[in-house]
Amino acid sequence: MDLTDRQEQIVTIVKERGPITGENIADELNLTRATLRPDLAILTMAGFLDARPRVGYFYTGKTGSELLTDKIKKLTVRDHYSVPVVVNDQTHAYDAITTMFLEDVGTLFVVDQHGILVGVLSRKDLLRTSMGQQDLSEVPVHIIMTRLPKIKVCQKNDLLVDASIKLIENQIDALPVIQEHERGMEVIGRLTKTNITKAFVGLVNRDDL
Amino acid sequence: MDLTDRQEQIVTIVKERGPITGENIADELNLTRATLRPDLAILTMAGFLDARPRVGYFYTGKTGSELLTDKIKKLTVRDHYSVPVVVNDQTHAYDAITTMFLEDVGTLFVVDQHGILVGVLSRKDLLRTSMGQQDLSEVPVHIIMTRLPKIKVCQKNDLLVDASIKLIENQIDALPVIQEHERGMEVIGRLTKTNITKAFVGLVNRDDL
Repeated sequence: MDLTDRQEQIVTIVKERGPITGENIADELNLTRATLRPDLAILTMAGFLDARPRVGYFYTGKTGSELLTDKIKKLTVRDHYSVPVVVNDQTHAYDAITTMFLEDVGTLFVVDQHGILVGVLSRKDLLRTSMGQQDLSEVPVHIIMTRLPKIKVCQKNDLLVDASIKLIENQIDALPVIQEHERGMEVIGRLTKTNITKAFVGLVNRDDL
Repeated sequence: MDLTDRQEQIVTIVKERGPITGENIADELNLTRATLRPDLAILTMAGFLDARPRVGYFYTGKTGSELLTDKIKKLTVRDHYSVPVVVNDQTHAYDAITTMFLEDVGTLFVVDQHGILVGVLSRKDLLRTSMGQQDLSEVPVHIIMTRLPKIKVCQKNDLLVDASIKLIENQIDALPVIQEHERGMEVIGRLTKTNITKAFVGLVNRDDL
C-alpha cells in the first residue's frame, strides 16, 4: 500500500510520540481534526495504526503473536512453584523412596546438616539403584544423587519460560527453587513439569493476561 | 460512549455481516463511502470495530486474553506427541525397567499379543515393585500395571489443553495417544508433561499463532 505524504507524516508522528490523540496529531500538522479523519481511518484500517478510547493512536509494530509472547514473558517462577521435599544426605535409599511415596513427589532435594542444597534425587536415580545388587537400606543417598555443580536450579524471579527451557534441555523433571546464602543455596521450592503444565492450562480463560 | 443512530446502524451491520468493506457498508446504508469515513474512524478508535487491509471491518467483541485463549485452543495433540514405547504384557518387571532406561522414557504402554493397549506402567509402579519382596525378573508387568478401564487416554484431534487437564487431574505423567479399532485401542503416540512444557515454551516467539 502506498501512503500519501501526509499519511507518512502521521505515521512518523505516531511512531515517535504515540499514544497521541487525533487532536494532537492535527495540531502538529497545523490541520483540523476533521481534515485528518479520513487519513487516520485509512491508516487504522490498513493496520499501521491502532487506536484506543481515551488513549489515542499508537503505532502497531506488533503482531498478535508478539503480544502473546509479551504476556508469557511476564510469568515468573514465583507464582508457580510447589513446596519442596528434602531429605538429609545421610538418609538411606529405602527411606528416600518411602518419602517419595508418602509425599507423592518425583524428585527429592538433598540437604546437608545446615539445610544447604547438596544434591537432587529423582525417581530414575532410585529405580536405577533398586536394580543393582546393593541393599537399598544400606546405600546413603549421597552416593546415588546428582550433586553440585551438576544440579540445575532456578530462582523466584526467573521467567517461567526460562525455567521451562532448563527442564527440557537438561531432561529433568524438577528444578529446586533456591535462595543464595553465604554458605550455599537454601531450597525454598520445587518447580516441576506439572507446574508448567498447570501454567499452560492457566493461560486459557485468564483475565489478567 | 454514546453512539449516534448511524453509528449504531453501522455496528449492527458489521456484527451481522462482518468482515465487510467500507464500500459495502455504505451501499447498505445508501450513503457514500466518504460520508461514512468519520463514523468508521470513530467506531474503530473506540474499539467497537477493527479493520484489516483486504478484509474489511469486523466486530471486536474480544479482549486480548480471549484472543490468547483462542490461539491456545487451536493447539491439538496431533502436533505435540512423541513416539510411544510399548512392552508386551508378559514382559517381566526387570526387562520393563531396562526398556525404560534404554528408551529413556518415564512411562511404558503395555499391549497384548494383538498390539492392543491393556495397561500403562509408570516409573512409580516399577519403583513400588522394586521395594517389595518379589524378584523383579519373575513378576510379569500385567500384575503391576494400571489396567483398563482405569487408563486415561487421548486422541490426535484432542485439544492440547484438554489433554493437559487430564494429566493434572489424574496426577499422571503421560497419556497414550490412541486410535480406536474394533478389537480395542491401538497406541500411536505418547503425550507427556515434557510435551506440554515444550508447547508452553513454543508459545513464545511463534509466528503461526
